[in-house]
Amino acid sequence: MRIVLIYSGGLDSTVLLYKLRAEVHEVLTLSVDYGQRHRHEVDQASLICKMLGVEHQVADLSALRPLLGGSSQTDDFAVPHGHYAEESMKLTIVPNRNMLMLAVAGAWAISRKADSIAYAAHAGDHAIYPDCREEFVAALDTALGLADWYAVKIIRPFVKLSKADIVLMGVALRVPFGMTYSCYEGVPGVHCGECGICVERREAFEVAGVDDPTKYAKENADVQA
Amino acid sequence: MRIVLIYSGGLDSTVLLYKLRAEVHEVLTLSVDYGQRHRHEVDQASLICKMLGVEHQVADLSALRPLLGGSSQTDDFAVPHGHYAEESMKLTIVPNRNMLMLAVAGAWAISRKADSIAYAAHAGDHAIYPDCREEFVAALDTALGLADWYAVKIIRPFVKLSKADIVLMGVALRVPFGMTYSCYEGVPGVHCGECGICVERREAFEVAGVDDPTKYAKENADVQA
Repeated sequence: MRIVLIYSGGLDSTVLLYKLRAEVHEVLTLSVDYGQRHRHEVDQASLICKMLGVEHQVADLSALRPLLGGSSQTDDFAVPHGHYAEESMKLTIVPNRNMLMLAVAGAWAISRKADSIAYAAHAGDHAIYPDCREEFVAALDTALGLADWYAVKIIRPFVKLSKADIVLMGVALRVPFGMTYSCYEGVPGVHCGECGICVERREAFEVAGVDDPTKYAKENADVQA
Repeated sequence: MRIVLIYSGGLDSTVLLYKLRAEVHEVLTLSVDYGQRHRHEVDQASLICKMLGVEHQVADLSALRPLLGGSSQTDDFAVPHGHYAEESMKLTIVPNRNMLMLAVAGAWAISRKADSIAYAAHAGDHAIYPDCREEFVAALDTALGLADWYAVKIIRPFVKLSKADIVLMGVALRVPFGMTYSCYEGVPGVHCGECGICVERREAFEVAGVDDPTKYAKENADVQA
């Protein structure tokens, strides 16, 4: 199959990239830059794709910033620190983020006659994100199947896996975890160790019992299991 | 209601803008520029909104051009002339165009707490566009209702009207037809008179029995009823 992978350069989508290639699919990777502060993540995505000889495109949606309203991923107020909690998480919501990403990936998939769009949604994706709900994805999959005479499917191979499961799969697939980047702070070469996504990342390695090669700015931050 | 109107600056969406305002809705207008050649259409949209004191935003998706593949609206080959015919029409398809537009409008509607997104789809929209199908719009409406905790609806007030009906409504609403622009050629101040959309525009005025104030480059082109 030819698959368009929505590829952030983070841990989950890098493991998915390696898995799809191991299954001998042809993978086209797409990073969506919606004006977030972590450009560094996209740079890492580009680097990993170059290393693997995989096509990588960046969809620059930063021009949409005036339309996207308040969110710590696109605006200039502080990144919420600590474990995911409802109030601080709400700040990291980009409105209609998944539909935007899937619409762009769908356009590329149709123009390149890909069979499907894949992304690395997993079981730990928080219910605070309304567009992570099954019903949302099912409706959008139906729409995408009708958007052209040529139907593209949405696949989410990790939807029943925990992030620790994904780390274990990554070990088996020899994923270079140290090259992946997913911190909300976006400082090149170092993860803050404190934002929601860093806390999840540390926990996933701990739970999986796998050495975490990530450089964290705050090594001794409390990790609440 | 507060409504985000997808607004091209063409005839149909300008009549819809006037209609929604006449119904005393608060209207926010959005032009989506996906790298098409008719920037002039967006300029006219901006001008009309300024005249009416209506908020107008342009979502610049031209950075997506490398992902959108072959289409006469985004690429450099010739615009197909004459009456809509299946083969020439296919050249004007931007892949996943409606999902892209509705995803962007949805993001803005969510961030501005609008009740709905409106666009001027009408009964004459051609079956050659797969994303004009009812099933597509229904699925996307469901997805949009689930994309946030706050649900936005898709409305298409003209979906049962012909373009001639829209012209008649425009007359009643005193729409300045001469300010609207919708030619694929994108030459400021003049419509080619020959591309598919110009042929439809001329026919709509003829069928409605309304004087057409549009300046056509080719005044005497064959209009096939």
